[in-house]
Amino acid sequence: MEWIVYLTFGASILALLFAFIFFKQMMKEDEGTDLMKKIAKHVRNGAMAYLKQQYKVVAIVFVVLAIVFAVMAYFHLQNGIVWFAFLTGGFFSALAGFFGMKTATYASARTANAARKSLNGGLKVAFRSGAVMGLVVVGLALLDVSVWFIVLKHTSLLELVGANADLVTITTTMLTFGMGASTQALFARVGGGIYTKAADVGADLVGKTEFNIPEDDPRNPATIADNVGDNVGDVAGMGADLYESYAGSILATMALGASAFATAAAESSTGSEIQMKAVLAPMLIAAVGVLLSLIGIFLVRTKENTNMKNLLGALSRGTNVASVLIAVASFGIFAWLFGTDTNQWWQTSLSVVVGLLSGVIIGKSTEYYTSQSYRPTQKVAESSKTGPATVIISGLGLGMLSTAIPVITVGVAIVLAYLCANGFNIEFTAENLQTGLYGIGIAAVGMLSTLGITLATDAYGPIADNAGGNAEMSGLEPEVRQRTDALDALGNTTAATGKGFAIGSAALTALALLASYIEEIKIALVRVGESLPNGVEAAKATLVDFMDAYNVNLMNPVVLVGVFIGAMMAFVFCGMTMNAVGRAAQKMVEEVRRQFATIKGILEGKAEPDYERCVAISTRGAQREMLLPSILAILVPIVTGLILGVPGVIGLLIGGLSCGFVLAVFMANSGGAWDNAKKYVEEGNFGGKGSENHKATVVGDTVGDPFKDTSGPSLNILIKLMSMVSIVMAGLTASFHLL
Amino acid sequence: MEWIVYLTFGASILALLFAFIFFKQMMKEDEGTDLMKKIAKHVRNGAMAYLKQQYKVVAIVFVVLAIVFAVMAYFHLQNGIVWFAFLTGGFFSALAGFFGMKTATYASARTANAARKSLNGGLKVAFRSGAVMGLVVVGLALLDVSVWFIVLKHTSLLELVGANADLVTITTTMLTFGMGASTQALFARVGGGIYTKAADVGADLVGKTEFNIPEDDPRNPATIADNVGDNVGDVAGMGADLYESYAGSILATMALGASAFATAAAESSTGSEIQMKAVLAPMLIAAVGVLLSLIGIFLVRTKENTNMKNLLGALSRGTNVASVLIAVASFGIFAWLFGTDTNQWWQTSLSVVVGLLSGVIIGKSTEYYTSQSYRPTQKVAESSKTGPATVIISGLGLGMLSTAIPVITVGVAIVLAYLCANGFNIEFTAENLQTGLYGIGIAAVGMLSTLGITLATDAYGPIADNAGGNAEMSGLEPEVRQRTDALDALGNTTAATGKGFAIGSAALTALALLASYIEEIKIALVRVGESLPNGVEAAKATLVDFMDAYNVNLMNPVVLVGVFIGAMMAFVFCGMTMNAVGRAAQKMVEEVRRQFATIKGILEGKAEPDYERCVAISTRGAQREMLLPSILAILVPIVTGLILGVPGVIGLLIGGLSCGFVLAVFMANSGGAWDNAKKYVEEGNFGGKGSENHKATVVGDTVGDPFKDTSGPSLNILIKLMSMVSIVMAGLTASFHLL
Repeated sequence: MEWIVYLTFGASILALLFAFIFFKQMMKEDEGTDLMKKIAKHVRNGAMAYLKQQYKVVAIVFVVLAIVFAVMAYFHLQNGIVWFAFLTGGFFSALAGFFGMKTATYASARTANAARKSLNGGLKVAFRSGAVMGLVVVGLALLDVSVWFIVLKHTSLLELVGANADLVTITTTMLTFGMGASTQALFARVGGGIYTKAADVGADLVGKTEFNIPEDDPRNPATIADNVGDNVGDVAGMGADLYESYAGSILATMALGASAFATAAAESSTGSEIQMKAVLAPMLIAAVGVLLSLIGIFLVRTKENTNMKNLLGALSRGTNVASVLIAVASFGIFAWLFGTDTNQWWQTSLSVVVGLLSGVIIGKSTEYYTSQSYRPTQKVAESSKTGPATVIISGLGLGMLSTAIPVITVGVAIVLAYLCANGFNIEFTAENLQTGLYGIGIAAVGMLSTLGITLATDAYGPIADNAGGNAEMSGLEPEVRQRTDALDALGNTTAATGKGFAIGSAALTALALLASYIEEIKIALVRVGESLPNGVEAAKATLVDFMDAYNVNLMNPVVLVGVFIGAMMAFVFCGMTMNAVGRAAQKMVEEVRRQFATIKGILEGKAEPDYERCVAISTRGAQREMLLPSILAILVPIVTGLILGVPGVIGLLIGGLSCGFVLAVFMANSGGAWDNAKKYVEEGNFGGKGSENHKATVVGDTVGDPFKDTSGPSLNILIKLMSMVSIVMAGLTASFHLL
Repeated sequence: MEWIVYLTFGASILALLFAFIFFKQMMKEDEGTDLMKKIAKHVRNGAMAYLKQQYKVVAIVFVVLAIVFAVMAYFHLQNGIVWFAFLTGGFFSALAGFFGMKTATYASARTANAARKSLNGGLKVAFRSGAVMGLVVVGLALLDVSVWFIVLKHTSLLELVGANADLVTITTTMLTFGMGASTQALFARVGGGIYTKAADVGADLVGKTEFNIPEDDPRNPATIADNVGDNVGDVAGMGADLYESYAGSILATMALGASAFATAAAESSTGSEIQMKAVLAPMLIAAVGVLLSLIGIFLVRTKENTNMKNLLGALSRGTNVASVLIAVASFGIFAWLFGTDTNQWWQTSLSVVVGLLSGVIIGKSTEYYTSQSYRPTQKVAESSKTGPATVIISGLGLGMLSTAIPVITVGVAIVLAYLCANGFNIEFTAENLQTGLYGIGIAAVGMLSTLGITLATDAYGPIADNAGGNAEMSGLEPEVRQRTDALDALGNTTAATGKGFAIGSAALTALALLASYIEEIKIALVRVGESLPNGVEAAKATLVDFMDAYNVNLMNPVVLVGVFIGAMMAFVFCGMTMNAVGRAAQKMVEEVRRQFATIKGILEGKAEPDYERCVAISTRGAQREMLLPSILAILVPIVTGLILGVPGVIGLLIGGLSCGFVLAVFMANSGGAWDNAKKYVEEGNFGGKGSENHKATVVGDTVGDPFKDTSGPSLNILIKLMSMVSIVMAGLTASFHLL
């Protein structure tokens, strides 16, 4: 049965192989005129320079944390492998970001050039390049997971560091590797988010509002920084976010599977086999998902000289086929795993379907609330008739109302996935709880199983966006820009679904991680106990105490305080990132104004602006501003654990998860609606471009920038990271209250 | 010992007596010129017309709910007294709003007239009129509580409806009376909030922004509606809000005291006495608080021809002396109640101090984040240099960051009050839990004990504001307006503290109510069980099941889903009220524009605008828009109870409380900061009045209006109301899962 791990390993290699092929194919395309090449090089260098700078800072954080973990291991507060495995998780995530962004920056000019010939040509280059990102993310994540599983299962590494090599220990140890991906994702999302919006807001406020020059105009000194930002934030940031969700959901579900069937495993060899199958199931779903994603990617093709509707059809066909096939396949997977004697096979498979469906529903609701084809966003556009204030009020109102469907969907999904995995047994027992939580994990894995293609449709958007920037700056014919704009608009629709998956999967993954936290605490208690003079006895006594805490009484004031702090963390984290964008944008505005004032001939297009300084400002701003919120996100769960103990941490995670999820949906949808309300006015409604109404919607769009691209998405990371930190620090929390 | 109840009754009569005296004193003042009288009458009629209209709608809701409760009583789902007592709670709250607003609308012209002579004269009239509101609220609330306690204790009313007349039943029955105050508060806050901001935003958007005419200019058709709104929203709405917190905290703490010492009471007569004392303690603190508030009110006086600093000193002296004295008095109260043999007396007294201190800290933090004397608001003003978008971004960032101090304060207060009441015993047992929760209730009672004077300093602000409006419209000398502006500014500082108390007390009261919910569920189960064929046995079995649910496991997916829905409710409720303001303001804008376009000579001041139509638009808008969010707030806890049961409801309440509290602080502080950032610019900073920067801050102020005066304060009600509804509907929830 362990061939499943090797199959997973094979699937990861296959994904990486196709990523390489798509990359090579893209590189063969013509990059266009010399000017196009030059601009693309500017953007590429800026993006790579930023990424290297960011990796330097992150490397320091990783070294510090690795030392902390090593010291913790010395004091038996942590498994002795974690410090190293943590580094591999971070390294692979960074590698995925690097490859993805490199591809994106090579692809933009090539997409613009292909769009000179046809819409379909542009789509093909952009989408295949996006697919590189998708495949690299799933490939590297599965590589990390499968190799570590093989190593821990077949070497005596765990015994070497004094731990058992049973499945529960292996999987919970592996779970902590996710911390590396989480930390990497945190900095990628926060740093990238601040970078891109500082540049965007800065470019818009002076260029568009004060000097009335169009988007991506080469006369605007911040325009290169803006294009760099799209790559840094929307490609690398999004990739790291979903890498974390993907790896996190698989790892957490493996751990939940191991503990859910641990009692069965101790009793019989059949039980032991079921446990192994439950652990391998997430990997198998992911491996099959890779193959189906590849099929989906190849389905995205149309005839030459096609229209928009066909293009959208092609994109949707790819993702839809992959989703339907994985739903069907999951029935096969679980029928084979659990046998068809009992109902368990189809019941657990339904959890996968629940996960997939809820992702689709959240995506559709995002589309409904943020697309200019529907009433809500049109109403925001209409409110521009009474000025910017009412645009802001109605956008905020829309975002707040839009939280209802996603929350209810996730709520129903949680209950359904739980019940499905439990055979619809509503009795609440410890055993049912564990299988139910495993079902929730499976739903998350199902939702993310076709990430290879959903991320492709996401990453393709910014590539098309950058292609448009390149076309504008290189002075290509207007129809090229129109074509890239069409591709970009298409990307917005698919990105809405992508965002639904990102936020929905973050919620489910965080929930699975929260459940795993409990398991980790138990293991940590025993580990710590073994090193004590009165040894395991003390640990066992604490374990009993802990089980009381595990049945955490909601009226325990410590839990309530934890929930309050969790809810607050979501807001404070957002406030910090919002202010960070504000401050960095302020500096950008000053620099752009200075250049317009001091460089002669810049507005006439006779003198070249100093793009590099703007890139440097965004880079420095992002580097400086990302540290405080990131460190806070790592420290608060630790400090809460030390002061309030395990019940406080559980409260913190629940408060952070619930409030953070709702806040993230609100911010993403308000931001999206403002963006498209502006576009709706630009399409000629309510006065069209240049009118007072248009200016009012530009204010909305500018406020929406940090909402949808900095603070909102960063919350995805926060809610997962806080769980991950708590898991890794479980030993510290446990021993602090044990010693 | 029961003389305490009569003392409370006496204190309530005393409060009402002084309210009457202050009212008569104010009425003796001269109302000024004929024009002043006329304008005041306009505002008064508008406000009274609105209030009557609102009471009509609310009356229908009350009748429907009373019928529902009566039907529930018929099916033993509810105590047979509740339907009537619910009506008294609502009636007294409505009466307090009526008297308070009547006083405020009579006082505005008189304040303006007094301010023609001196600043001190204006202060005296305005403050004493505000005190009428404060005293009427505490007087009527204590009257309701003390009379019901006497009636239930000394008549056989409870036996008549088939219930026991022990203290636990009396107090939990009384608790449900709070539902009347909650329902009244809901409509007052939501309806009043929509009214005032529709008028304000509408008046500002056209008058200030489009036609550049000043605030309160008689040429603006919406100006009377705007002044009516201040009374309807800031006086009546705020009063109803705090009436609910005040009554709710006393009732909840009485119920918690009764159940915390129920076991002791069953064991011995000493225990029984302690139980009685614990029940009476909140009433005693409140009664003493009334006396100290009166002392404080009389301390607010200065010499004639004084300056601003002395005025602020006089106001602060009043509240500070009252707070310090109640802290001191509480030691005496508990020493007398519990005796000084054990440490319990000073430990419980410390809970009172904790409540008072946390109110002060939250107030100070509100002041720091929203006053233009400090950096945060000045930075928001500074961000106007780059336009309205950055004003919005920085204001939102500020509001989010400002949640940290209040949340941490409330968190520390919860833990401290809990530990104090428990004698610093950190062991977590059922008994400790109950005394600890009683301590949290005592902290809430302590925080609100001097409401008589804190509400006076709050209600005085809008009176001064309206006086300014009257002065402006009546064309009084500019120095009169300057004086009323000074009084208004003074009010803003004291109002910041008042807002801190409102939100802090809402959080603690909601927590006490949440704890009482558990007790109510137990009683409901027994009541329902007695009416069943297999009777009490079935109820007892369910009670065992329920105790499992009481130890609500946080990993129970139903609890988690409840938390998610609670967090969502806070956002959706805000979104609805934000959109309501947006829609109503839109109608106002259209009407004002229409009048400016069609009534000739209106801008030259030659023709009078049609004020009535604007008043009618605000009234209709508020009436229509308040229904949906209000009904949702009532229905969601009921539906959650039916579908998800008790654990789901507890999750809902915790999610709603935590997320709602944080969201409320965020919105109140963002709104306050935008308001004062505008004022800071108007004081001559960053370009001063009329500059582009000023316009940018006006956008911020307009967005902030529904933030700080509609959605934010409405959340105070939501978090209390959802608990109250759950308590009243406990019988339905219990029986639905029992039958």
